[in-house]
Amino acid sequence: MSGAPAIPRICVIGVGLIGGSLMRALRLAGHVGEVVGCGRSLENLRHAVRLGVIDRYETEPARAVDGADVVVLALPLGVMESVMRAMAPGLPEQCVITDAGSAKVSVVHAARAALPDHFTSFVPGHPIAGTEKSGVEASFPDLYRGRRVILTPCAETSSEAVDRVATLWRVAGADVSEMDAAHHDQVLAATSHLPHVLAYGLVDALSRWSDRDEIFRYAAGGFRDFTRIASSDPEMWRDICLANHEALTAALERYARELDALTDAVRNRDGERLKAVFSNAREARERFLAMLEG
Amino acid sequence: MSGAPAIPRICVIGVGLIGGSLMRALRLAGHVGEVVGCGRSLENLRHAVRLGVIDRYETEPARAVDGADVVVLALPLGVMESVMRAMAPGLPEQCVITDAGSAKVSVVHAARAALPDHFTSFVPGHPIAGTEKSGVEASFPDLYRGRRVILTPCAETSSEAVDRVATLWRVAGADVSEMDAAHHDQVLAATSHLPHVLAYGLVDALSRWSDRDEIFRYAAGGFRDFTRIASSDPEMWRDICLANHEALTAALERYARELDALTDAVRNRDGERLKAVFSNAREARERFLAMLEG
Repeated sequence: MSGAPAIPRICVIGVGLIGGSLMRALRLAGHVGEVVGCGRSLENLRHAVRLGVIDRYETEPARAVDGADVVVLALPLGVMESVMRAMAPGLPEQCVITDAGSAKVSVVHAARAALPDHFTSFVPGHPIAGTEKSGVEASFPDLYRGRRVILTPCAETSSEAVDRVATLWRVAGADVSEMDAAHHDQVLAATSHLPHVLAYGLVDALSRWSDRDEIFRYAAGGFRDFTRIASSDPEMWRDICLANHEALTAALERYARELDALTDAVRNRDGERLKAVFSNAREARERFLAMLEG
Repeated sequence: MSGAPAIPRICVIGVGLIGGSLMRALRLAGHVGEVVGCGRSLENLRHAVRLGVIDRYETEPARAVDGADVVVLALPLGVMESVMRAMAPGLPEQCVITDAGSAKVSVVHAARAALPDHFTSFVPGHPIAGTEKSGVEASFPDLYRGRRVILTPCAETSSEAVDRVATLWRVAGADVSEMDAAHHDQVLAATSHLPHVLAYGLVDALSRWSDRDEIFRYAAGGFRDFTRIASSDPEMWRDICLANHEALTAALERYARELDALTDAVRNRDGERLKAVFSNAREARERFLAMLEG
């Protein structure tokens, strides 16, 4: 390491898998000086200090952000706005703020309302990464290596703030791109939020069907893969569905129409149509995998 | 090996992953004497001989079954009845016949129509096993070890024939149970056929949405797992959907109603309902995994 770190003091509000992994990566790269953690659980914060993820902690957001050059909000979407309001009085004037929420329009609304004096320094962000585990003990510095991070700055967002946040994620190994917040929410509704609701909905439905024990007993490996995402954290996903309810409702309605047509094909024994849909899906998935690898 | 094999001559019609793996397991156990293969592709049959999966082959079903003690139909559902008709003239009187189709009511209908003189010796079966690969070169003797096989005998089916087929699968390492054919089709519609149609339908739909390139570009690991079953063989799944169209249509209609209710919860921002559904799904999946392991 030569010279002073790029970010002398960083504050992470929410020290779990997402925030903790980012801090580990930034520390390892020598990109940050002091790391201040903030959260509701003292036990978790103390654990984060012991693990070397943060240097010290505060439980009050306004105190935690004091003197910070960058603040990262790695929080459930449901508490984003209230934490923004709580930290606002303590934010230094030049501080750059970013978040890691899975929906972006609602976060932009929240920041516009709760951080009026810092809105131009707020850079909405979404790292597309995670594991089935959660908590700071699951954090690791390579979580973002090779993963995508989408930033959704607004017209008013300062380009210096965007650069600072983009650099931070690149230092952590991520592939950073920019997108309009509403477009982000539509794309993620299709790619991630819709499949989660479909999988949750299927397992919930089957668990209430009368022959559920036999259904589960005779499930094979395909069912396990298909429903893996139904083991995700229910509160986090409730928050995501609420935050992105418009784009997700549109995606669900659209999918329901597609499923209706497919159900007609099954009902009418339309083998040609079924084969065409299945073949197209298989080819599209293969193209998609090739694109991800290429 | 001591004494004569339990099945002096077995005939397998369809020498791919399913039929080939069963023959490998039965040979390894010394449970069968001569193995006669039958199929449309000479190249595949020759390959199966070279691999030691079968001893010899015939391309005419009626000739292939000549002198067989047991016949295994490891065929796509779409050709099951025509192959039964083709083999009927050559079937020895005491021959036991079974199949490995993923839907059972349609196979029972086919056997009743095509094998009237042998219907009491026909034991419908369904091994719940497979990989994403297919073909005899993908076959291996342990495919059925610890996997479930469901037999769906009718009232007329001879119990000796059922015993013979159950023993054969147990020798291959499977856990054999019996079920009514219609009930089998309902259970498998929910567990397997419905998820496949949902996954195929999702990938097909997304591939036609205008922003599909971005959708696929930003898909994460969860999407990959969720859609893995959409890489299954389209013709095989067309056949399964056609064969089990009644139970599958009912399952699709039922799921559509559940999805409607869940969409309402998203649209109305009903966080309590969403959390309840997601939590129930996660718990049900955990119970199911524990049951599979226990």
